[in-house]
Amino acid sequence: MTHHDIALITGDGIGAEVLPPALQVLDAVGARHGFGFSYTAYDWSCERYLREGSMMPADGLDQLRDKDAILLGAVGYPGVPDHVSLWGLLIPIRRGFRQYVNLRPIRVFEGIDSPLRAAAPGDVDFVVVRENVEGEYSEIGGRLNRGFPDEMAVQEAVFTRAGVTRVLDYAFGLAARRGGRLTSATKSNGIVHTLPFWDELVAERARHRPEVAWEQEHIDALAAKFVLDPARFDVVVASNLFGDILSDLAAAVAGSIGIAPAANLNPERRFPSMFEPVHGSAPDIAGRGIANPVGAIWSAAMMLDHLGHPDAAHDVTDAIAAVLAKTDVRTPDLGGTATTAEFTGKLLELL
Amino acid sequence: MTHHDIALITGDGIGAEVLPPALQVLDAVGARHGFGFSYTAYDWSCERYLREGSMMPADGLDQLRDKDAILLGAVGYPGVPDHVSLWGLLIPIRRGFRQYVNLRPIRVFEGIDSPLRAAAPGDVDFVVVRENVEGEYSEIGGRLNRGFPDEMAVQEAVFTRAGVTRVLDYAFGLAARRGGRLTSATKSNGIVHTLPFWDELVAERARHRPEVAWEQEHIDALAAKFVLDPARFDVVVASNLFGDILSDLAAAVAGSIGIAPAANLNPERRFPSMFEPVHGSAPDIAGRGIANPVGAIWSAAMMLDHLGHPDAAHDVTDAIAAVLAKTDVRTPDLGGTATTAEFTGKLLELL
Ligand SMILES: CC(C)[C@H](C(=O)O)[C@@H](O)C(=O)O
Ligand SMILES: CC(C)[C@H](C(=O)O)[C@@H](O)C(=O)O
Repeated sequence: MTHHDIALITGDGIGAEVLPPALQVLDAVGARHGFGFSYTAYDWSCERYLREGSMMPADGLDQLRDKDAILLGAVGYPGVPDHVSLWGLLIPIRRGFRQYVNLRPIRVFEGIDSPLRAAAPGDVDFVVVRENVEGEYSEIGGRLNRGFPDEMAVQEAVFTRAGVTRVLDYAFGLAARRGGRLTSATKSNGIVHTLPFWDELVAERARHRPEVAWEQEHIDALAAKFVLDPARFDVVVASNLFGDILSDLAAAVAGSIGIAPAANLNPERRFPSMFEPVHGSAPDIAGRGIANPVGAIWSAAMMLDHLGHPDAAHDVTDAIAAVLAKTDVRTPDLGGTATTAEFTGKLLELL
Repeated sequence: MTHHDIALITGDGIGAEVLPPALQVLDAVGARHGFGFSYTAYDWSCERYLREGSMMPADGLDQLRDKDAILLGAVGYPGVPDHVSLWGLLIPIRRGFRQYVNLRPIRVFEGIDSPLRAAAPGDVDFVVVRENVEGEYSEIGGRLNRGFPDEMAVQEAVFTRAGVTRVLDYAFGLAARRGGRLTSATKSNGIVHTLPFWDELVAERARHRPEVAWEQEHIDALAAKFVLDPARFDVVVASNLFGDILSDLAAAVAGSIGIAPAANLNPERRFPSMFEPVHGSAPDIAGRGIANPVGAIWSAAMMLDHLGHPDAAHDVTDAIAAVLAKTDVRTPDLGGTATTAEFTGKLLELL
């Protein structure tokens, strides 16, 4: 029996409430399709930071290196600055394991109201492919004349040919597999060094994929179109910062950040990839057993796909769609009264 | 009689169709309130660029320097790259005249459907204050190893204490005048040099305005909230790039980019300020007399306010609201069949 060795980083807050449902789903679908999982848990979190002064041990990446994949709950804790939790855990894993693709599927499910009048279930079904390791999120830069009137801060965005090309090739490949179109986010009219370079590379990579129709849109107009006409998108590729903004915006258009999943992929599989719901640790509802587990379960489905089980992955997303469309079992964030356990039970029944 | 000397830059495409209605409105409202205008027209445009090789003459800024304000139609022409038209005209004016505030009001008018189910007319009424001369739109940066596998592009974002402070003070002042709240857009968890500096300055300037309640939101979450709960915003202050994205997104939320206005302000009035609709030159409909003039007319109202005529400015925005709410005269972009002239005629009647 195929067997996958998964690292579990529960993290903080509702991380501990949404990962167990994801594991139940993985075990159930694995049993049906003939593969299994073993899990190794890591207590890396803001709590650990408060206790021991670091989010993860110094050899953290080495402990994960041989895993088949990483499943992460959520990080963030009141009193621990964001940049500590992110730059101490999330970002080092993304970068250390060359997870240069951040993949965020967007669907308007039947049974979830989009805030948009015109977004009918089924119409909106696209993917944001975000560059995940370079670009605008760079540690290069600093501060001059601290505290004085002439104080300034500079920050360097760095776009490399290799870094942009590989994420574009991934996105064009995905668009080809989906039989669809590619939209590239840019702002080359205002940001005159990095984004014209991005545009040139898009045009260059497009020549290797003549079967994919593509277009480019400036990020300001593109954000507007996500609201005015979300059904027109299929694969949207964007730099690190633009992809971050567009994927959260798209999750809002789909009606709920609580259900949005993300995959941080090292497509070559030289290093483990990481799967995580988009929502945060939600300290306001943590511990009450009412968190929406869909983000984590859908992330687990993306992991199944990455591990070579696309049929099993489909079973899981179909079950998510079915529980939302066919039942009124909903967690409070979606206007219902179900607990995490009740919702998960229903989903397992429909699986 | 108070008299204002206005520079008119019609620009390209529908610029020539939306500015004349704005002037009719200005003259009408001026006659009523006891002030007048003289206009000097400049043919600076992409057409000029194609003819003479530059968007404006070398002494262009000097020709405008003594004007009371600048009214701009639209720039952009098929075949002229965006960066030529922008960096050859729009951006030099913004920077050369220290127009460090870009102000974009957002209203959901009765009679215009927001794409959002929950955005009822009257609920949504806020202002985006965008930093307009520094930040991420910087000419500093370049390209290394062009054409080789190790090619890269870098782009420096530059945030200065003086530059950030002045736009924050403007935004806090505006929030105080509106009796409202201020939301600061940030991404200090991912962009670790410039945006933590921005956050510090927000906290510092807030101490000078204890009467204004404020909050900060990361740009990704903020974009999502523009869609999920636009009514909660009052004054949103943002860096150059974030403000660009948020203001277009907000215009979409309000139902139409065709009506959105913008003011590029030099609040000290040392230099002329510039007023322009947010929409572009729309080559697809140019020349047909069907462009929506509301963006230009509302921009002219913002100019009235800046020139010290807030009552006249109100008359104009009231007339815009009335024509949209009380009549079914609509240009085609809003689903109607009226021409620019018919719409303007109706608006002048209601003024
Ligand atoms: C065209 C572009 C450079 C410009 C900007 O981003 O400033 C435009 O989008 C705007 O908002 O006025
Ligand atoms: C928290 C933040 C640094 C992170 C990001 O921007 O990458 C998050 O928003 C995400 O999208 O995973």
